[in-house]
Amino acid sequence: MFKKILVANRGEIALRIIRTCKEMGIKTVAVYSTADKESLHVRFADEAVCIGPPASAQSYLNIPSLIAAAEITNADAIHPGYGFLSENAEFSRVCQENGIKFIGATPEMINSMGDKASAKATMKKAGVPTIPGSDGLLDSIAEGLKVAHKVKYPVILKATAGGGGRGMRIVRNDDEFEKAWNSARTEAQAAFGNDGIYLEKYVEEPHHIEIQLVGDQYGRAAHLSERDCSIQRRHQKLVEETPSPFMTDKLREKMGKAAVAGAKAISYEGVGTIEFLVDKNRDFYFMEMNTRIQVEHPITEEVVNYDLIKEQIKVAAGVPISGKDYLPQMHAMECRINAEDPANGFRPSPGKITVLHIPGGHGVRVDTHVYAGYTIPPNYDSMIAKLITVAQTREECIVKMKRALSEFVVEGVKTTIPFHLALMDNVDFRAGNFTTAFLDSFDFSVL
Amino acid sequence: MFKKILVANRGEIALRIIRTCKEMGIKTVAVYSTADKESLHVRFADEAVCIGPPASAQSYLNIPSLIAAAEITNADAIHPGYGFLSENAEFSRVCQENGIKFIGATPEMINSMGDKASAKATMKKAGVPTIPGSDGLLDSIAEGLKVAHKVKYPVILKATAGGGGRGMRIVRNDDEFEKAWNSARTEAQAAFGNDGIYLEKYVEEPHHIEIQLVGDQYGRAAHLSERDCSIQRRHQKLVEETPSPFMTDKLREKMGKAAVAGAKAISYEGVGTIEFLVDKNRDFYFMEMNTRIQVEHPITEEVVNYDLIKEQIKVAAGVPISGKDYLPQMHAMECRINAEDPANGFRPSPGKITVLHIPGGHGVRVDTHVYAGYTIPPNYDSMIAKLITVAQTREECIVKMKRALSEFVVEGVKTTIPFHLALMDNVDFRAGNFTTAFLDSFDFSVL
Repeated sequence: MFKKILVANRGEIALRIIRTCKEMGIKTVAVYSTADKESLHVRFADEAVCIGPPASAQSYLNIPSLIAAAEITNADAIHPGYGFLSENAEFSRVCQENGIKFIGATPEMINSMGDKASAKATMKKAGVPTIPGSDGLLDSIAEGLKVAHKVKYPVILKATAGGGGRGMRIVRNDDEFEKAWNSARTEAQAAFGNDGIYLEKYVEEPHHIEIQLVGDQYGRAAHLSERDCSIQRRHQKLVEETPSPFMTDKLREKMGKAAVAGAKAISYEGVGTIEFLVDKNRDFYFMEMNTRIQVEHPITEEVVNYDLIKEQIKVAAGVPISGKDYLPQMHAMECRINAEDPANGFRPSPGKITVLHIPGGHGVRVDTHVYAGYTIPPNYDSMIAKLITVAQTREECIVKMKRALSEFVVEGVKTTIPFHLALMDNVDFRAGNFTTAFLDSFDFSVL
Repeated sequence: MFKKILVANRGEIALRIIRTCKEMGIKTVAVYSTADKESLHVRFADEAVCIGPPASAQSYLNIPSLIAAAEITNADAIHPGYGFLSENAEFSRVCQENGIKFIGATPEMINSMGDKASAKATMKKAGVPTIPGSDGLLDSIAEGLKVAHKVKYPVILKATAGGGGRGMRIVRNDDEFEKAWNSARTEAQAAFGNDGIYLEKYVEEPHHIEIQLVGDQYGRAAHLSERDCSIQRRHQKLVEETPSPFMTDKLREKMGKAAVAGAKAISYEGVGTIEFLVDKNRDFYFMEMNTRIQVEHPITEEVVNYDLIKEQIKVAAGVPISGKDYLPQMHAMECRINAEDPANGFRPSPGKITVLHIPGGHGVRVDTHVYAGYTIPPNYDSMIAKLITVAQTREECIVKMKRALSEFVVEGVKTTIPFHLALMDNVDFRAGNFTTAFLDSFDFSVL
């Protein structure tokens, strides 16, 4: 097992990883930008190294600084968390070259899945259903238009290196194409340093349902059931739950089998997720594979009673998995508590948290890095906590979420709590009657 | 079901009860002394009524004020929590007379179990093993000495109305008797308004193991397995866990059966606990019955996945139980985080909490009413949080507790966290090798 892990991340996920390392008896090294000097991940790690100024490019995305920090502290592995360098093949390769285990996918896997066009081809070959679209990256607007005519509008342009909705544009006719193409490329270049774009038929009103996977170094792979992430605003997930209210036992079996086949096709090692779009007929299509831990992983942990970060570290250290699939035993839901103003287009609301009360009690889990007196820097993403509830049924889970939200007090900044409270009272949401288009018609004026 | 419950308590248990009421769709009324104006139970309840000055006798123990508050707010039930009036037969009776459901035992049950001497006789009759001692209350020192000679020293004097170690004195010879008698009576009178004292053979180095019970209005009763509360300092529980490391399947079956027989013998309605002393031969003796929810109830909730407060409210409303016993599916442990200085004889450390970080993550539950900026009043007990961890095994549970304790930050007051951290590293504790005498030889100087 590893002796010391450097956590190449910040915020709640850095804390999350440190927690599991502590429970495994593994020493930890935190890295931080000067904006994060007062952060709890710095306080709770065994060692901490400042890796640069607030701008991510010069700190959390700065590969030479991270490698130097690992070497100085004698860390034998690096956990990248999510975002930042977690799906960066170059970082994975540099770690490898420096004899540091990258707790994530190999450069080859990241390349094969990170490039979403080739990922799609790989999955298609493994028998995983895919959405019709371009064969790989588009060279030009002209080629894009040709494919759009073939698969028929609406279509969606996607950044091959993308994630989290960045570099994605829905196009409904020829007139919109050029503008969408240009803005998707510009955004992709800025966000990921890669402006490669591919095109797909846009499945309208689909469900976003993903399958959690774990694979070991010996070719075994298993799934841990699904997460429904259909509650999104501009492709940003706001609420996730498992099981999906749209799921059937038969569909879970089919999707699980397809996802495991996909993982095995690339000899996937580590925890990962295959995201699917599921249409109203319960036909499902491969969307993308995330070769990293995901923000919403706790809901799976709660229903299968399984520490995913622990499993990820074990697998990276060469421990074999059982290969057994896990089915949900409970219902779990996560609300992302962001420092954003939901009544004003979810505008970020950085600043100092003056008063904080975090809910607790039976069936409530909170993963957070903030505290009363903490100042949320404007440099990074705005998530301040993940509020997770778990109960026997979906209805109880929602009731518990309402209760927990009602006692979650954050003063000094705006948060998404009022949105989540309104959502929990929404008749369609409560009935499990929603698709990814749900928030397009949500009445935010009540907030 | 009840429409509105008045919570006749404060601190974490008031919040705990409000949480479940919210989840059940029941309105809540908080009551508070002027010292608790800024408390979260006041903030989170639907209504709040000030019932008097800080002194408990004039507020939380003030029956007319509480009944008036219930009548003003039109509450149809009162939940007394633990401590205060939770085992006060008079309060239960006055509630009854005023047409308000007391969510707890009837006056008769409280009397039969609250008077510990008659409780023992009742249990003995029901076939529950009891410790040899006086037949009921002692009239005089002379009578006490006679019984002591019969059962042989060491013996223990106990307040019949007692609990939490108050009004208890161990006596090892005739010379110590009179002083112990007088101080036990004085303490009992001050704490409970009842100086009745009985005597028992003192079982040395016993395990304190209690069985959680639930009974309904139709004569059904069931048990939810045990809690080991042997980690005590001067009869004050500091750490509880379930299952008990001293438990065997056979012993659980025997103790569970005895406890259920005891509950049925008094047609017990509600949640309650029978506390046993278990000696090294795994013989067990009835100690007392608590006719209320206990501080340490969450560990049972975590291992049987069952909301005990919800069950208590349902049973009070006349909902029948299944009658099925519950066995632990996991291991859970609770550390009582008190505002006390463990390096200085656990001296209370009231005052303002300046910095607070509450641990979270997988398998961690925190029940607390405090927040950064909260001032702990000197008037009440010093518990500021219950830190609960749950895992597949005892070892994992301890590891998780260590991790959670290590990231529990409370500044401004002293807390028992350093004690708990030292305990989790203690070889005997980790091996499950401890009795109620464990802390007598614990080295507090390392804290």
